[in-house]
Amino acid sequence: MSVTSPPVAIIMGSQSDWETMKNAADTLEALDVDYEARIISAHRTPERMVEFAKGAREEGFKVIIAGAGGAAHLPGMTAALTPLPVFGVPVQSKALSGQDSLLSIVQMPAGIPVGTLAIGKAGAVNAALLAAAVLALYDDALAERLDEWRRRQSASVADYPLDDTP
Amino acid sequence: MSVTSPPVAIIMGSQSDWETMKNAADTLEALDVDYEARIISAHRTPERMVEFAKGAREEGFKVIIAGAGGAAHLPGMTAALTPLPVFGVPVQSKALSGQDSLLSIVQMPAGIPVGTLAIGKAGAVNAALLAAAVLALYDDALAERLDEWRRRQSASVADYPLDDTP
Amino acid sequence: MSVTSPPVAIIMGSQSDWETMKNAADTLEALDVDYEARIISAHRTPERMVEFAKGAREEGFKVIIAGAGGAAHLPGMTAALTPLPVFGVPVQSKALSGQDSLLSIVQMPAGIPVGTLAIGKAGAVNAALLAAAVLALYDDALAERLDEWRRRQSASVADYPLDDTP
Amino acid sequence: MSVTSPPVAIIMGSQSDWETMKNAADTLEALDVDYEARIISAHRTPERMVEFAKGAREEGFKVIIAGAGGAAHLPGMTAALTPLPVFGVPVQSKALSGQDSLLSIVQMPAGIPVGTLAIGKAGAVNAALLAAAVLALYDDALAERLDEWRRRQSASVADYPLDDTP
Amino acid sequence: MSVTSPPVAIIMGSQSDWETMKNAADTLEALDVDYEARIISAHRTPERMVEFAKGAREEGFKVIIAGAGGAAHLPGMTAALTPLPVFGVPVQSKALSGQDSLLSIVQMPAGIPVGTLAIGKAGAVNAALLAAAVLALYDDALAERLDEWRRRQSASVADYPLDDTP
Amino acid sequence: MSVTSPPVAIIMGSQSDWETMKNAADTLEALDVDYEARIISAHRTPERMVEFAKGAREEGFKVIIAGAGGAAHLPGMTAALTPLPVFGVPVQSKALSGQDSLLSIVQMPAGIPVGTLAIGKAGAVNAALLAAAVLALYDDALAERLDEWRRRQSASVADYPLDDTP
Amino acid sequence: MSVTSPPVAIIMGSQSDWETMKNAADTLEALDVDYEARIISAHRTPERMVEFAKGAREEGFKVIIAGAGGAAHLPGMTAALTPLPVFGVPVQSKALSGQDSLLSIVQMPAGIPVGTLAIGKAGAVNAALLAAAVLALYDDALAERLDEWRRRQSASVADYPLDDTP
Amino acid sequence: MSVTSPPVAIIMGSQSDWETMKNAADTLEALDVDYEARIISAHRTPERMVEFAKGAREEGFKVIIAGAGGAAHLPGMTAALTPLPVFGVPVQSKALSGQDSLLSIVQMPAGIPVGTLAIGKAGAVNAALLAAAVLALYDDALAERLDEWRRRQSASVADYPLDDTP
Repeated sequence: MSVTSPPVAIIMGSQSDWETMKNAADTLEALDVDYEARIISAHRTPERMVEFAKGAREEGFKVIIAGAGGAAHLPGMTAALTPLPVFGVPVQSKALSGQDSLLSIVQMPAGIPVGTLAIGKAGAVNAALLAAAVLALYDDALAERLDEWRRRQSASVADYPLDDTP
Repeated sequence: MSVTSPPVAIIMGSQSDWETMKNAADTLEALDVDYEARIISAHRTPERMVEFAKGAREEGFKVIIAGAGGAAHLPGMTAALTPLPVFGVPVQSKALSGQDSLLSIVQMPAGIPVGTLAIGKAGAVNAALLAAAVLALYDDALAERLDEWRRRQSASVADYPLDDTP
Repeated sequence: MSVTSPPVAIIMGSQSDWETMKNAADTLEALDVDYEARIISAHRTPERMVEFAKGAREEGFKVIIAGAGGAAHLPGMTAALTPLPVFGVPVQSKALSGQDSLLSIVQMPAGIPVGTLAIGKAGAVNAALLAAAVLALYDDALAERLDEWRRRQSASVADYPLDDTP
Repeated sequence: MSVTSPPVAIIMGSQSDWETMKNAADTLEALDVDYEARIISAHRTPERMVEFAKGAREEGFKVIIAGAGGAAHLPGMTAALTPLPVFGVPVQSKALSGQDSLLSIVQMPAGIPVGTLAIGKAGAVNAALLAAAVLALYDDALAERLDEWRRRQSASVADYPLDDTP
Repeated sequence: MSVTSPPVAIIMGSQSDWETMKNAADTLEALDVDYEARIISAHRTPERMVEFAKGAREEGFKVIIAGAGGAAHLPGMTAALTPLPVFGVPVQSKALSGQDSLLSIVQMPAGIPVGTLAIGKAGAVNAALLAAAVLALYDDALAERLDEWRRRQSASVADYPLDDTP
Repeated sequence: MSVTSPPVAIIMGSQSDWETMKNAADTLEALDVDYEARIISAHRTPERMVEFAKGAREEGFKVIIAGAGGAAHLPGMTAALTPLPVFGVPVQSKALSGQDSLLSIVQMPAGIPVGTLAIGKAGAVNAALLAAAVLALYDDALAERLDEWRRRQSASVADYPLDDTP
Repeated sequence: MSVTSPPVAIIMGSQSDWETMKNAADTLEALDVDYEARIISAHRTPERMVEFAKGAREEGFKVIIAGAGGAAHLPGMTAALTPLPVFGVPVQSKALSGQDSLLSIVQMPAGIPVGTLAIGKAGAVNAALLAAAVLALYDDALAERLDEWRRRQSASVADYPLDDTP
Repeated sequence: MSVTSPPVAIIMGSQSDWETMKNAADTLEALDVDYEARIISAHRTPERMVEFAKGAREEGFKVIIAGAGGAAHLPGMTAALTPLPVFGVPVQSKALSGQDSLLSIVQMPAGIPVGTLAIGKAGAVNAALLAAAVLALYDDALAERLDEWRRRQSASVADYPLDDTP
């Protein structure tokens, strides 16, 4: 079987999650890491999820980033169906502000891990950075790009606060 | 296709959930409703779950009671894979006392419902009573047994508290 | 006694809950299931509630969907007064975002079940779907409509996220 | 109509609540205030509750203390059915430590008040003290006993902590 | 000492609480119950609080309604300094939506009760209704006005929801 | 007026808080900092609290450590009555594990600060260390003892975990 | 080494925290206390943090005010690296409204204290007041300014609420 | 520089965390993955932490597993100081059952990721499995051992619950 997939898959439960998960995509692009973004709903398209997750390793994916909100089952179910590392992003939900998303993703039972990031945009950015850190373990050029990204991040922190008064 | 299943399936994520879910079984027995109890882990046996859920209606089940704890995905994923009514029981978890179980089960997105009961033993009893109420809609004998069960429950409430001092 | 009621009653504690509960009504209409929607406040019209709940089965209702917010007593009290299956929808409250509504509905004691759905609009849609699933157990035409509804829902999930940038 | 009831009714949802609510009874006894304690379950004996609450004022009760746990509907439903002041005691629940009881009692909608006390034993003691404070508004002898009780309480607080090491 | 105070005092920690507490005042006015509203900050004017609370009974007040937000100490400290019944209203706070206010008011230790109402406007309305219910125990005219208020409230609940679509 | 007080006062709401607050006393002793420990209940002995807090600076105290549980008003009320720095220790409560204590202490309004430490024993130790750090600003010998305490603490952390299996 | 630093350092994790922390700066200015405000991110500039914290005492700082949001590590890590008193301000976070910030700052282990203030603006004001109270222990002129500030605060509380209706 | 470190470092804040983190070590051993376990306290040994984290990549570590409780800063601070993937395990805390640990670890700001696992023992096991999954991306023998571990896990789930009655 030919391996043509990019190293990272970004999956999410619905189109509305893209507003959050796009931050993962943008971060991977900034690091020049290829990815594929797909909508896969654990609840509304469970068979698409099973097919994707079971075949992900053979398709050539290395890391899966999964974002979902509410009773967020996508990251955990994907992790149940693939041996690849899965990183979960709790999307901020309407009533409970992502507390439901966070607990549904992070509180996995022993045996099936999901490395969970922060609720919302910060979590999406960090899922990408964590995926890059994993890939960088065996990709020196990426490791250097990630180091450079972190150096620029540190350098971008100003020393003194600026008043925003006009 | 022959229909040999009992009307109610009680499924749970692990042997340790049986201490809770046994209360559903006992309640169904008290109402003379047949059931089958199985261990099906969404995370450790995802394929067993998919097979069970997709085939449940054809096997003859009418109602599914699913208990799970922590990032409790079993009720929701089962509901994603069957058109049968699914009732979820949040098993009390160690660190978060079932708050994670409750939110993981009840906060399902629009489109895939799980009728969720209380955390722990009370929820297991009530899942059985709710399943019986559903079956009783078209089973007058069961309706009468359920009415009788409720009458006895009301009658069993004493009028005045008894001191438990010896 | 003649039976003229539709199979589903949608009750709610106040006019303001209709914005949420209307989603249950719309979903039942999409599935061609008859319903009656009423405002019944457990607190402000307790006698209306008692009368309704005690007579619901004889009126011909099969399933009751009850939505309420805050110290949400309507679903549980209705369940205490009727043997019919009751599904509860926690309406999102102002200060506590429905956490109070959710706990007041779902944490029923053993003996009186309320099948509880998610907070807010998703819960209202799902209460309707769960009611339909119950009715479909003995109504093949409805079962087929529900299957079709679920197929369309699965098909409506796009494969890839679309940027919403204009 | 003859009035023979004591001024305070202590009602509770189940025998198991008596361990908590007995502290209300003991406190009333210490203040020489008559009371009647009854088990009235909103869920398992709704009709007993309706009958009690609707008749409470005519029976001669002045204040109702209601204790319940979990989805605690007894205080609020009683308040919906009587114009008497109702004080609610959230009984500590197993899974959620009384957070569900507290929210189910205190978050009443505008129109039907329940004066809510602390979770558990302290709440039961305080419900009795609050009932006494209400009755003392028009009973000078009770007012004096309550003042004396408070003076003794203040005096009982030692100035310096004692080591409990043996 | 002459008694010239109205029966109800409404006190609050700051001017900003008036938006909430005004609902208590409006409700008392609707019931024709006199009140006096004052700003008394437990933290910024502790001596004003001590003076007020210690003198409240002699001034002729019967019931104190105290509203506060955040680390809301006003209701409990007032209750510590007066034998009068104190009803507390948790004002909705900015960061924690009144959860801090609620716990700071309701979780009083055994010995000093505060009858606590719901967070925000509903709680303010209900504090007034509860104060009225207390006063009505010995004021038949007020009892009748309160009964009438409750009858009108029940009658105002429409039977069927109205669509608000234009 | 003569100044005879030690620099630190440890106050607490009840004898039962001493089990927690004793850790503050022990820590101060280890640092050779004098203190006085007193039981002062904001609710049961409000006048003792007012007298103590208003006179604390003139008595010669420099820092006040106040521990309380539940609706913990002692730290905040003391801070309202003295210009001295007040450090609050949330004592672990029974039902809510100190979440009520924490919020009641930390969520003070702008104008009256309480420097709040962790719930329970760790918080008591740290209140003592923070008091010592404040005093050490102008006491070089204490500064050196505190530095030494911190060095020993660092040195006491083993490099590798020891199995506790026997 | 010459000592030229002002007595108070205000540090924060990012420019966006300045909106909150500026309230600490404004309060110190109102009390005529010098300060220096810097952006120091525990996560993005950890070495800047280590250098600052380790050198703070020698630079002449007396008190450090540290504000941060989310997994707020700046206050605790600073306290780990300096013997100076550290006061922490939980900045209100987006998804969890500062509950994460609060717990990350206040729940320090025994050995390294952070005196924690309220979430958001009130906490920033109060951190400044607490810092001033510490400095005032050995600065009579500042003590007098702080007393005056508190007197004005008390005097500014109106006696009666004003309607804000136009 | 020679590379002699094992691929996985397990670090924890104190000896008492070893009871939890030992489950990570046991899991790695079961998968035949080398590791080194060290006690490194972010708060009590911050310089040990800085030295370890900054040198971890050069020492040859590939993945860091960090466990901590309460205001758990070790995982996030380590991630700030190394480009290696860091997986965090929230150790169950006494008062708040690990809710503080979880939020302090998972809610990292954009820029510094920590892949967070469940609270307590399950999280420790899963951190090891996730570390193994990362290493297995480039180690086919480990990938096969991990697959086998997962197959055995699936096979170990019994089909039917066993009564534990003796």
